[in-house]
Amino acid sequence: MEYPTQSIARAVEALSRLPGIGKKTALRLVLHVLRASPTDADELGQSLIDLRHHTRRCTDCGHLTDTERCGICTSPRRTRTQICVVEDARDVMALERTGQYQGLYHVLGGLISPLDGIGPAQLHIEPLLDRIGREGATEVILALSATLEGDQTAFYLSRRLGSLPVRLSHIARGIPVGGELEFADEVTLARSLQQRTPYVNPLGAEASTSA
Amino acid sequence: MEYPTQSIARAVEALSRLPGIGKKTALRLVLHVLRASPTDADELGQSLIDLRHHTRRCTDCGHLTDTERCGICTSPRRTRTQICVVEDARDVMALERTGQYQGLYHVLGGLISPLDGIGPAQLHIEPLLDRIGREGATEVILALSATLEGDQTAFYLSRRLGSLPVRLSHIARGIPVGGELEFADEVTLARSLQQRTPYVNPLGAEASTSA
Repeated sequence: MEYPTQSIARAVEALSRLPGIGKKTALRLVLHVLRASPTDADELGQSLIDLRHHTRRCTDCGHLTDTERCGICTSPRRTRTQICVVEDARDVMALERTGQYQGLYHVLGGLISPLDGIGPAQLHIEPLLDRIGREGATEVILALSATLEGDQTAFYLSRRLGSLPVRLSHIARGIPVGGELEFADEVTLARSLQQRTPYVNPLGAEASTSA
Repeated sequence: MEYPTQSIARAVEALSRLPGIGKKTALRLVLHVLRASPTDADELGQSLIDLRHHTRRCTDCGHLTDTERCGICTSPRRTRTQICVVEDARDVMALERTGQYQGLYHVLGGLISPLDGIGPAQLHIEPLLDRIGREGATEVILALSATLEGDQTAFYLSRRLGSLPVRLSHIARGIPVGGELEFADEVTLARSLQQRTPYVNPLGAEASTSA
């Protein structure tokens, strides 16, 4: 496509390299930036430059940080004996939003996927083994996606961690909250049945007393 | 939402001000930029900064340019007696892609829309009247959207240009190429019937001779 100026062509080219943004969307964004105030355009450009220069991986857990160790690893409030293993930084953010977890994290930087050429050596696995000893962890929680890659990675980690004195757990698979039974696939339904938990009466009394 | 670092929060904030990009998409783009090479990230940021500083409006037609007058206005190859009036720079690009038009353009910078507080005074209309005389234009082609705003603007322009010695035309309304009759709305269908054109046999012979 022909663009009116060189700088428009360059910005469209750079934006269309982002995931989910084609040339047409990129052009629409460029025209928006041209209508925006110059300070807004500068802020957008500068924030993207600074982003890449100021952000690094935490040397302990691999989460995103602007210091050497991230805010979670350096927090005195976190339980150091629990380590939750996740695929990437987005998962840390998702789990932090629940407000339910007070332990540490470990970001693998991907999942084992032989088809994509990603084996255990490409992932941040050795530092996890070192850390478990160093932090004196008693529990490792696998919070990986319920996909083939997630299952392969969980299986590999279970074998590597088998000889270590830690409890290995996995986040629950089941019907999502708000999900209807009839729309659940049979594998999820089977798992939710196998891994059923004792019923707790939401009114506070034990289910057995009201039954 | 809590972000791991200040620079991530800032980039998410700046990106989510773009049209069609919410906080979640912005975060996905930010994580992509963090995985990209530093030179790619710098190029993206710098191209957006340069874009706003190097791009301006052509002093003649209002199209986007990086010089005082745009490439179309300064081209010796363009027919200066035809001026095609469009809403914005995107329309110029769309018409240029057809390769069917050799005249000049005039970008209004919007359409008359009283509900949005846009009247003729907010648009680039007076310079169009000056230009018609200066260029010695013989035809003004209205290439405006087939919307209420487009029709209002065309009506206003037809009254302003009524006293000038120029032929005023409008791009055709009708069934889009590839469009099926049964899915066309009745207004489009009625227009396409009223503004029917002589049939030209695609094999080259006149329709009347083969009939």
